Amino acid sequence: MIALDNLTKMEVAALTDVNGGLNLTDGHARLTLSARQAEVIARFPDLFQEASRRRFADIETEAHRTFLDAVGQHSAPVGTGRILSCYSSTLATDIVARALPQDTEVALLHPTFDNIADLFRTRGLRLRPLSEDDLVQRRWPGRPVGVIAITHPNNPTGLVTPPGHLRSLAEHAAGHGQTVIVDAAFRGQVKAAQYDTYEILDAAGADWITFEDTGKLWPMHELKIGMLAFSPKHAEAIEAAFAESLLSASPAVLALIRELAKDWGDSGFEHATALIEHNRRIVSTEIGAVGLSLADPDSRVSVARVRLPDNGPDSAKLYAEMVRRGVHVLPCPPFHWADPEEGLRLIRVSLARPSDTVEAAARTLAQTFADLR
Amino acid sequence: MIALDNLTKMEVAALTDVNGGLNLTDGHARLTLSARQAEVIARFPDLFQEASRRRFADIETEAHRTFLDAVGQHSAPVGTGRILSCYSSTLATDIVARALPQDTEVALLHPTFDNIADLFRTRGLRLRPLSEDDLVQRRWPGRPVGVIAITHPNNPTGLVTPPGHLRSLAEHAAGHGQTVIVDAAFRGQVKAAQYDTYEILDAAGADWITFEDTGKLWPMHELKIGMLAFSPKHAEAIEAAFAESLLSASPAVLALIRELAKDWGDSGFEHATALIEHNRRIVSTEIGAVGLSLADPDSRVSVARVRLPDNGPDSAKLYAEMVRRGVHVLPCPPFHWADPEEGLRLIRVSLARPSDTVEAAARTLAQTFADLR
Repeated sequence: MIALDNLTKMEVAALTDVNGGLNLTDGHARLTLSARQAEVIARFPDLFQEASRRRFADIETEAHRTFLDAVGQHSAPVGTGRILSCYSSTLATDIVARALPQDTEVALLHPTFDNIADLFRTRGLRLRPLSEDDLVQRRWPGRPVGVIAITHPNNPTGLVTPPGHLRSLAEHAAGHGQTVIVDAAFRGQVKAAQYDTYEILDAAGADWITFEDTGKLWPMHELKIGMLAFSPKHAEAIEAAFAESLLSASPAVLALIRELAKDWGDSGFEHATALIEHNRRIVSTEIGAVGLSLADPDSRVSVARVRLPDNGPDSAKLYAEMVRRGVHVLPCPPFHWADPEEGLRLIRVSLARPSDTVEAAARTLAQTFADLR
Repeated sequence: MIALDNLTKMEVAALTDVNGGLNLTDGHARLTLSARQAEVIARFPDLFQEASRRRFADIETEAHRTFLDAVGQHSAPVGTGRILSCYSSTLATDIVARALPQDTEVALLHPTFDNIADLFRTRGLRLRPLSEDDLVQRRWPGRPVGVIAITHPNNPTGLVTPPGHLRSLAEHAAGHGQTVIVDAAFRGQVKAAQYDTYEILDAAGADWITFEDTGKLWPMHELKIGMLAFSPKHAEAIEAAFAESLLSASPAVLALIRELAKDWGDSGFEHATALIEHNRRIVSTEIGAVGLSLADPDSRVSVARVRLPDNGPDSAKLYAEMVRRGVHVLPCPPFHWADPEEGLRLIRVSLARPSDTVEAAARTLAQTFADLR
């Protein structure tokens, strides 16, 4: 039994640390604005006025279209009413957890961010793990599993589900009357994940639910939208659950998202990912000095896992000592929601931070590891 | 059996009406910005920069202090960690619904906005109605009721719980080991509701949970914060449920709230309430022409109920015909969550709209009523 809080609680602890330690926990972008992003923020008063002047539905449709086009999702059902704007992708996840029939058996990717498992369990859904190896080997579960849920790309591993694998999953699900859930919250960061997943899901005749998120892409201080898209079968239940949770997202934030997405489709993506990869190399170099290495060197998401050898401190111990030294990262056991022990030799560092922050944190990680070994 | 959607679904229908009808459904402020509010929005880029520069906890504490002082809540536990900032007061309500033990018996004010009852029931809480007359007569339920939940001021009736009544409730609850929930989402609009409820609850030694909301005060296009405050007994369960729902609200929005609250404490309140009362008189005059009257003439919240006589169309019928004529209001049955029939002779109109909108809608209401009678 490992005594760790859930991941978000550790992230909250980092955010509210009264000693002001370095926070490399959450996957949110905490970066300096690019020149183009700063220009969009400077125009926010105009975007707010636009939200006063124009119809909500028009602004929302433009934001969906622009964002989804920027991340390759040209077949998403924009303008049909089957994309709902939520305050966050977590809220979108909870709405789906409520909309699915209680006792639905869900095969959920393992490991993945613990929040999905927590929200699903709290609403009475029953979970069984689908390992990344199951996914890679296309071992899809049959009945009584009613929902197969993947994170694409996965958090924390960065694993992308290739198009052929998604097609295989969608065809399997269509044949077995199952629903495919694609949590694409990190999709915007990874080109390989930006093939049109809606086209594949629809072509297979599968029922599906997809989460898209703007919250991981831009340093917008939680001005963000979680989009909840779904096939017609789920419309009624999801609309009812949505109406219990909110009236609408902010049209001013939707207008902001539209402008940021224009930049992302232009050169913003390249600008941001170059920084993430630069920071990944910094971590690799710093930890390499004490013999540590990245667990997922080919990952392109804005977090990196560091692998710890068996003959040294585990990630729970390393985490606690690093907090004492003023650096917050995430030990990985909670990601392994069905078997936390599996995560004891892995620790996660966020890369969407200024490079000097990443460097200082990686150095502390290396030094702490060396001191505890 | 009355076939009506829940209130939020009807509000969503109004918001997304492709024919662009008049929307007098939700209680959100959909007004032109005052000069002072426009000035705050013009400074939003600076507030965003402030959120980048300063610690989240510092901005959050300032926002809580300034807002709660502006609405008279000087004893609220600002800076103790026992006020959490949520995306909305609905999310705060759902977090509490999750944090309370399943099967808790809750005495909930009746009528009140149906969303609270829906969220509580969905999480497995058991409800029994507490009528407004019970509240006025101080008839507090004993065990097995574990939670007594009031809306102060109430939506849609505007009923304010006077200080002596809250003290009586708090002392009763302390004596019976019950928790008092105060949903104060509309408090900012009503001076009589702005006595220090935290002081009374704490002085009685009661356990309590309070919702505060900025979403009903200002025309901010859903840039808002729902504050979730609680006595120490509930800290652990609420913090855990919070961490399942979000990492943090936006510090940029918190800074915005702080600036708007400064104005509210200054002259913003008087400016806004004068408009609401002007609009209430417009409704009263327009409906008076066909013999209708306000159900709650002394209410000071930004919604007004119109009473319909028994020998004419009921509110479900009137609602449907008004939608056909391009005006969205809310029939009251769903507010009477335990007995919808009670609401059939009441219909609710939002007053936080430009006066010409309110006048046009009230005239349509009167004309439709006359045509259907």
